[in-house]
Amino acid sequence: MTTNHCNDPCAATLIPLAKKEGITTVWDRHKAMQPQCGFGQLGVCCRICWKGPCRIDPFGDGPQQGICGATADTIVARNVIRMMASGAAAHSEHGRHVALALLGVAEGKLPDYTIRDEGKLRSIAAKLGLDGTREDILAVAREVALATLGDFQNQDHDTPCAWIASTITGKRLEKLAALHVLPHNIDAVVTGIMARTNVGCDADPVNLVLGGVKGALADFNGMCLATEISDVLFGTPSPVVTAANLGVLKEDAVNIAVHGHNPLLSDVVCDVALLMGDEARRAGAKDGINIVGVCCTGNEVMVRHGIPLAANYLSQELALITGAVDAMVVDVQCIMPSISEIGACFHTEIITTMDDTKIPGATHVNFREATATENARQIVTLAIEAYKRRNPQRVIIPDIKRTAMVGFGTEAIVGALATLNAEDPLKPLVDNIANGAIRGIALFAGCNNPQVDQDSSFVTIARKLARNNVLLLATGCGAGAFAKHGMMTQEATLEYAGDSLKAVLTAIGTAAGLGGPLPLVLHMGSCVDNSRAVEVAVALANKLGVDLDSLPLVSSAPEAMSEKAVAIGTWSVALGIPTHLGIMPQVTGSPVVTKLVTETVKELLGGYFIVELDPDRAADKLLDVIDERRKALGI
Amino acid sequence: MTTNHCNDPCAATLIPLAKKEGITTVWDRHKAMQPQCGFGQLGVCCRICWKGPCRIDPFGDGPQQGICGATADTIVARNVIRMMASGAAAHSEHGRHVALALLGVAEGKLPDYTIRDEGKLRSIAAKLGLDGTREDILAVAREVALATLGDFQNQDHDTPCAWIASTITGKRLEKLAALHVLPHNIDAVVTGIMARTNVGCDADPVNLVLGGVKGALADFNGMCLATEISDVLFGTPSPVVTAANLGVLKEDAVNIAVHGHNPLLSDVVCDVALLMGDEARRAGAKDGINIVGVCCTGNEVMVRHGIPLAANYLSQELALITGAVDAMVVDVQCIMPSISEIGACFHTEIITTMDDTKIPGATHVNFREATATENARQIVTLAIEAYKRRNPQRVIIPDIKRTAMVGFGTEAIVGALATLNAEDPLKPLVDNIANGAIRGIALFAGCNNPQVDQDSSFVTIARKLARNNVLLLATGCGAGAFAKHGMMTQEATLEYAGDSLKAVLTAIGTAAGLGGPLPLVLHMGSCVDNSRAVEVAVALANKLGVDLDSLPLVSSAPEAMSEKAVAIGTWSVALGIPTHLGIMPQVTGSPVVTKLVTETVKELLGGYFIVELDPDRAADKLLDVIDERRKALGI
Repeated sequence: MTTNHCNDPCAATLIPLAKKEGITTVWDRHKAMQPQCGFGQLGVCCRICWKGPCRIDPFGDGPQQGICGATADTIVARNVIRMMASGAAAHSEHGRHVALALLGVAEGKLPDYTIRDEGKLRSIAAKLGLDGTREDILAVAREVALATLGDFQNQDHDTPCAWIASTITGKRLEKLAALHVLPHNIDAVVTGIMARTNVGCDADPVNLVLGGVKGALADFNGMCLATEISDVLFGTPSPVVTAANLGVLKEDAVNIAVHGHNPLLSDVVCDVALLMGDEARRAGAKDGINIVGVCCTGNEVMVRHGIPLAANYLSQELALITGAVDAMVVDVQCIMPSISEIGACFHTEIITTMDDTKIPGATHVNFREATATENARQIVTLAIEAYKRRNPQRVIIPDIKRTAMVGFGTEAIVGALATLNAEDPLKPLVDNIANGAIRGIALFAGCNNPQVDQDSSFVTIARKLARNNVLLLATGCGAGAFAKHGMMTQEATLEYAGDSLKAVLTAIGTAAGLGGPLPLVLHMGSCVDNSRAVEVAVALANKLGVDLDSLPLVSSAPEAMSEKAVAIGTWSVALGIPTHLGIMPQVTGSPVVTKLVTETVKELLGGYFIVELDPDRAADKLLDVIDERRKALGI
Repeated sequence: MTTNHCNDPCAATLIPLAKKEGITTVWDRHKAMQPQCGFGQLGVCCRICWKGPCRIDPFGDGPQQGICGATADTIVARNVIRMMASGAAAHSEHGRHVALALLGVAEGKLPDYTIRDEGKLRSIAAKLGLDGTREDILAVAREVALATLGDFQNQDHDTPCAWIASTITGKRLEKLAALHVLPHNIDAVVTGIMARTNVGCDADPVNLVLGGVKGALADFNGMCLATEISDVLFGTPSPVVTAANLGVLKEDAVNIAVHGHNPLLSDVVCDVALLMGDEARRAGAKDGINIVGVCCTGNEVMVRHGIPLAANYLSQELALITGAVDAMVVDVQCIMPSISEIGACFHTEIITTMDDTKIPGATHVNFREATATENARQIVTLAIEAYKRRNPQRVIIPDIKRTAMVGFGTEAIVGALATLNAEDPLKPLVDNIANGAIRGIALFAGCNNPQVDQDSSFVTIARKLARNNVLLLATGCGAGAFAKHGMMTQEATLEYAGDSLKAVLTAIGTAAGLGGPLPLVLHMGSCVDNSRAVEVAVALANKLGVDLDSLPLVSSAPEAMSEKAVAIGTWSVALGIPTHLGIMPQVTGSPVVTKLVTETVKELLGGYFIVELDPDRAADKLLDVIDERRKALGI
């Protein structure tokens, strides 16, 4: 395994600075960890009970079974489906948090929140089979919240979760039900995976993976509800022009980075910061308060409010090394524990806020929805205090930022299309797919991973697909990569899109009043917002009268890292979408599991994993898949 | 790490036989796995995301942080609380299964089951704050089932699960609530642990471990409801004399081993077998059908119906090597995947029955409660068919079995005490503890683990404690060990109990009509039945007006192995009970976690882990703890 480098353009300035200051970054730690354990990389290390650890010898000379008798196939399957369970747990815990907040709003218990998108709430109610027309919007909110919480409560295995059942195509639902992989209760499915992988339970790799698929679909369900209810509470994204990369930090402002995933806190911090600018100015920051985003909390406030994005996952430490971040406020997920150590090298206040995400050395503000504004004030005040301690001599903000036109949720995309055909907004998209002007659609998702040059594969694959007229969607740290590299601009469309794609994006963008084409890559939001891409795909499939596995649609996670990505990739496959991984998944120690997820599953579900570490070849493979799908559709 | 041997007296015959036949057993696989990975043993290997695997160098020369920056403390804490989550999941999934069956019975949907202990159901209803006096017993069952399922559904973090809240002492509830570790919903707590251990979430080892404690207490809650509702459906244990070890197999019978944990299937198999004896005899088995138990399914049917126990965890393969088992029917948990391979070396039908526990090579009977009797008939028929294929030349049943007087649930113990004092049954126990005739109480629980000589530590520690007048309780594979080694007999009491203990056991046993003393070790049931021991302890604590952490009560898991044992051990500590582990827990790579669970937690909760691999020294330490507790009580 060779070590790779940060391909973030800010790194050239900041990495040498870190070295000079004796600060280690994720790339240093990755290098120090080489060589990584090959057993773990193959997925054949089992630490599920204290008879172990056990490891299967991949060369066939040593043990071929664990102490209990589990084979490599069993061990790999158990390990990977536990990752799916954890991914589902993380997204769904976020979703539950938001759903409970909606209930609190409905019951008048959370004065710091409100219903910002009544229309969306009413359409969700209708989608869930509830009465969305009641005049009392809080009564609608309550019903939606309770129905959503029902997806964490239902004990009838034969009744699927309400959100997935009302989101995907009928044919897909039937197919998933026939395989017994439709989740009935998110929590129960997570618990079920943890139970069946206990020592001496499920040993059948195919049965295990199908159990994992159910967990992954529970993950999808959790993401749908998290995304949609967040729109209700914080606003549905619409196109907005902002910027990305560390140049968004301001030398003369109190810089507060919001980091993590859950908008419940960050949205209120943004609101409160607007009111506290004078306090910042009184402390000497003539530009007041500057909120910037990191990771998916960054994406949440970027697509909804145009807050600039400072960094995606791997660059989070670089933000601190600028010496210009006064506070980094974190909620949950993808927060490197290292930030408290690096923050301590500067004046930076690292502020944790959630009961179940604390970091030694950080300041903890006990965030509660009931006291959200007060907590946000505490946080902003801590940031202003920290600003006073900032050493201007140590501030080095790279002058690197790229414009980013973001905020393309489903409604925004359909809205833009409606400017071409108000009666039948999807028609222009379908027509252009049918006539080949749009060859296919690709969703870029997933994390950063130091195993490859940061952001690089995203950019390489996307450019090649765009040149071949593939419409590009992105979420999460993939979206962050594109934003940082200037690929969410109209200029990028003009530079990189193939002619027919360019014409379509220009027609839509111009009609939609954007004064030019849509950006080359449409930023749909954070990683939970992958559900938005499915919403678009379902609308297309329904319009065409086909199932999702017929669409010329692919997804790609060139730098998959988190267990959440394992869950997302798996539901993407389960929904019928060929899904590229640019990182070797830790399953290859099992021939059965490897074949199952890359081949056999295609017959079962239409989707499958395409593992290709070379980004150029990955683009070719994705184009081949798109063409295969087009051919099958007869277009 | 040296390799150890099977201390089961049947091994002397069967292990050489296995070697001759080329069959590998768990001890062979354990030996082949040496040396085991030291990183895993210390708990410092992290495979939580695909940036890794990461490993902390315990010698301080190599990496001290994972790629994300997680320290050994963070990694160890995350790993161990995931084990607690999985333990809680396994026990609680079992509990949910039983609760759903009770609901099915209440709703008239499961004709193959019935309420066997109405009195117990009514007392459970009262305990849960429901009306247990209603004439319609099915209405009571429905209410109890729904209230129980509520423990998997409640979304209010401030309302604890109903079972734990109505089971433990008020003082303990207050203490746990103050630490925010009382579970409100079993599934949500499991999901919460999987979410908080996701990459980039909780990095604070103390916060993580407290999250794990909540998971462990969810495990306790799941065990309570599993145990008590099983008593309602299958009968509450009462003293019964049976036998243990492989000599319980019969040469001239169709031998069916029931293995796993959940009585829903095995209880019906026992019933059906009684009706199908003639079919077995027609197939040539003159002694009809012989049901024997393995692991905790074995304990379930042993304490309720006096079914003999063939084997505990590590001996399950030996049962097959006798060549005399015609079918091994498994449900969930602790089933070595190797059994299908060994079964195939003989005529033995290995039958899996649960959707989420399949084994490649086994025959799967799709068990459903609604068709339980039919499924049981299928299983017994498969066993009879297999019997016809049995090769009598290959049958070697060691002539080793020991009498075992078992079935000492809470009701049985209190019932026996009531023969001494009907008005105040606990008084004789309390008086004898106070006057020192009983120096203390020890609960033996947990698994087998090939890291130590099988069963040996259980026996060594128990004999020393008994000699020192400690009252002994046992569950799970610990109980299996004692049963197999003849320590659940009246003779053992006469041989090994100290004088004052012997006198007390004799007085109780004689008054209870057992014609002699109680057995030396009281078999309380399977590993979910550890809740029974807590019930006894709570009654004692309430009687004395103290909390659980004042009682001269200890627990010991000399061969802990399963994640379930990790959960059990942790709730034992959280309930205030000093808890011995005879296996090195995989946390010692973290100084913070190690100190927390062995020292600091004592101040927080009264209980703590005592790690001592030498059984003789372990007994001394447990006696010291008991004396310390007695001294604090002033007795």
